[in-house]
Amino acid sequence: MFTSIQREVNQFINRGLDRTLRIAVTGLSQSGKTAFITSLINQLINIDNVTNGHLPLFEAARQQRIVGVKRIPQINLNIPRFDYEANLNSLMASPPQWPQSTRGVSETRLAVRYHNSGLFSHIKEKSTLYLDIFDYPGEWLLDLPLLNLNYQQWSLEQQNLRQGLRAELAQTWLEKTKKLDLTAMADEDILAQIAKDYTAYLQACKEQGLHFIQPGRFVLPAELEGAPVLQFFPLLHLAEKDWKKLKEEAKPNSYFAILNQRYDYYKNKVVKGFYENYFVHFDRQLILADCLTPINHSRQAFQDMQEGLQQLFKNFHYGKRRLINRLFYPRIDKLMFIATKADHITSDQIPNLVSLMRQLVQDGGRHVAFEGIETGFTAIAAIRATKQVLVEQEGKTFKALQGIRSKDKRQVTVYPGSVPSRLPSIDFWQQQKFDFDQFEPQPLESGEIIPHLRMDSVLQFLLGDKLA
Amino acid sequence: MFTSIQREVNQFINRGLDRTLRIAVTGLSQSGKTAFITSLINQLINIDNVTNGHLPLFEAARQQRIVGVKRIPQINLNIPRFDYEANLNSLMASPPQWPQSTRGVSETRLAVRYHNSGLFSHIKEKSTLYLDIFDYPGEWLLDLPLLNLNYQQWSLEQQNLRQGLRAELAQTWLEKTKKLDLTAMADEDILAQIAKDYTAYLQACKEQGLHFIQPGRFVLPAELEGAPVLQFFPLLHLAEKDWKKLKEEAKPNSYFAILNQRYDYYKNKVVKGFYENYFVHFDRQLILADCLTPINHSRQAFQDMQEGLQQLFKNFHYGKRRLINRLFYPRIDKLMFIATKADHITSDQIPNLVSLMRQLVQDGGRHVAFEGIETGFTAIAAIRATKQVLVEQEGKTFKALQGIRSKDKRQVTVYPGSVPSRLPSIDFWQQQKFDFDQFEPQPLESGEIIPHLRMDSVLQFLLGDKLA
Repeated sequence: MFTSIQREVNQFINRGLDRTLRIAVTGLSQSGKTAFITSLINQLINIDNVTNGHLPLFEAARQQRIVGVKRIPQINLNIPRFDYEANLNSLMASPPQWPQSTRGVSETRLAVRYHNSGLFSHIKEKSTLYLDIFDYPGEWLLDLPLLNLNYQQWSLEQQNLRQGLRAELAQTWLEKTKKLDLTAMADEDILAQIAKDYTAYLQACKEQGLHFIQPGRFVLPAELEGAPVLQFFPLLHLAEKDWKKLKEEAKPNSYFAILNQRYDYYKNKVVKGFYENYFVHFDRQLILADCLTPINHSRQAFQDMQEGLQQLFKNFHYGKRRLINRLFYPRIDKLMFIATKADHITSDQIPNLVSLMRQLVQDGGRHVAFEGIETGFTAIAAIRATKQVLVEQEGKTFKALQGIRSKDKRQVTVYPGSVPSRLPSIDFWQQQKFDFDQFEPQPLESGEIIPHLRMDSVLQFLLGDKLA
Repeated sequence: MFTSIQREVNQFINRGLDRTLRIAVTGLSQSGKTAFITSLINQLINIDNVTNGHLPLFEAARQQRIVGVKRIPQINLNIPRFDYEANLNSLMASPPQWPQSTRGVSETRLAVRYHNSGLFSHIKEKSTLYLDIFDYPGEWLLDLPLLNLNYQQWSLEQQNLRQGLRAELAQTWLEKTKKLDLTAMADEDILAQIAKDYTAYLQACKEQGLHFIQPGRFVLPAELEGAPVLQFFPLLHLAEKDWKKLKEEAKPNSYFAILNQRYDYYKNKVVKGFYENYFVHFDRQLILADCLTPINHSRQAFQDMQEGLQQLFKNFHYGKRRLINRLFYPRIDKLMFIATKADHITSDQIPNLVSLMRQLVQDGGRHVAFEGIETGFTAIAAIRATKQVLVEQEGKTFKALQGIRSKDKRQVTVYPGSVPSRLPSIDFWQQQKFDFDQFEPQPLESGEIIPHLRMDSVLQFLLGDKLA
């Protein structure tokens, strides 16, 4: 009898200390999500309670309190598994390859077995922290603001974006849209055709390095490919009075009505679906961005990434006017923006990269404090592709990088130049071009831990408090 | 006041006479579903109330009671549209191409405006029949029997299939499965690897012309690609006593438990999902099969198609033991099995083809009558690719076919040979080989109606009673 009660109390304590943390990883496209998660898993499962030299900044590992980390079966059987093995294999291939990027959501589950410290250690020696790691396209996160916008408001927002490169790329579908009699009875084939042109425009924006792509499913349709819910587009040429008139006059089967209906369906089913099935359940969110590639591209690409990151950031901004935030608040308690590919610059430039990231996200670098959300900014290399070397030239010593350059697959030693710590002015851009190289991964031996830069600082931010 | 009541009565009558028919089209793979639906739409929208020479067997068209047929927006915005325009364009290309086959579900909606005949014509002159046409992979239908099977029963069914070609193709994954200690704690990567081999086996079966592929989503995964729900396999090497022992002894995280759990998830979420979201709502079902290609292939391919068709047929069989049928019965009131590519044989062979189709489905040609389900068998060419000509040889006149042969893209005149009206015996197969050619579509001019064989008989079966 006593043992039974004792067992129950023990189980109760165990359940209380064994915790689950749902971690979401996303990023603007090409930000290196797959490489990041592959490395995150690799760093963790290589922790033992003896030596953890690969993670000096991760306290629980340094203190040898982590007994071991294992991959275990995920809970959601209908979500694709994150294919860690395949990604690791591509790094161990000869020549090594960057892991293939995913096109939808994926999941992986880890069990972290650790020694309790402090007070808890007297009640229970060891606990398990379960990590559910979700990888999802940044485009899905970029869609969340739609929940606060009706079709007219969204069209207006899109209108404000139409400038420079976008205006150029938008021509074909804009012309067709203007010619459409919105009060006429809708012809599905014509809608499908214009939507195809609109989707091609979004794809072209993406290919040109622009990041603020809305609606995100248009470029990553998966099972919705060809469905009417992805066959609408914003109306950029209408003035306020046109909207008013159309709302009063357009019949239920008119182009105007059908476009409204499809927008609403997209918002209420697709976006809200992601929101309810995934987003509200996340405990912590990492947002990855490659800040170097858009600097190479153009001023517009850079500003577009800024727009994208700020839109992402707004989703976490607890403001009175934003119903959506009140709904999920305060489930997410930690949020980190991570500049990736920090091995593509020399170490002295890393503070600039972090500062730039913060500027990009926070619009002028204002520190925005959220009630209950701790926000971090860092720069890392999930899979380190270069070595830093010292080069002597004309009596002076420079830091330089050695690695296999992607564009010509040659081993090179380069000085990648400096990273601006603030948003460069227009003048600056006209005078100077950035040219940060891409590098191929280094050969990885079987059993070797993936070389990284500062992944331990991410682990400390993400897990430190939970393993205390 | 009176006009208001009158209007309401009129609306009531209109609603009563305007009907919606949900028609499902499926078939074993390569049966020509896309070509069939493209032609079905094309035949219908080219009906007017003047001349309908292209559909002599479709009564409502012949009697000029159909005012017109239009494509209108579908109801389900999240289901891909059937891309009629693109399919028609590929037929009008130069050289003409067969429309691309789809890999998931698609939908299209037609409005048929017609003159009422008989009694109703006094109440209301014209009515509208709405047709919702759903195209879905035959593999999904082949999965329905799983709803009645647990993991052990399903494994046993799969065991019975393991012979000849299948046994050969199954070797790799079977070997690995046998070596697995089913009571050991499951390693997800090992499960994923064996599941990959198992999926490769199913794909190989499909490529070898075998049709009975279960579970169907393994070869058409769509958004489930890489998800654990598609990472299981049957256990063929276990005897009854092994199952019993494993059920008693295997722990919750063992291979055995995980495999059971995934099978159940597949059955209860994926298969039941199709069943509840689609299948129960269908009013009429067409099942297409190309009976000629498997005759070319091998006796096993032919028998496998028979197995597939009979499994499909069982879904519609109203038996006391099959709970699933009682659930949907009697929503589907008409069911038609259609042998496609009837233009690949001469017209004198068509009765044999129909007879063969019936044999294949009904296991020895027994006429199975269902309570409340009218079943039809026919042979058609949705898009006629050949012309029939008379050839004189040694004073005798033969029927022959003219068309562009697919394998060498040459215009040929061939005598395709005779079609067996019953399942040929083993002896017959050893002595003789069938060799029915594939043909390319004929050039189609813009505005021209797609040439067909007996599509009007399908329309009469499908719609005749609803347009009376």
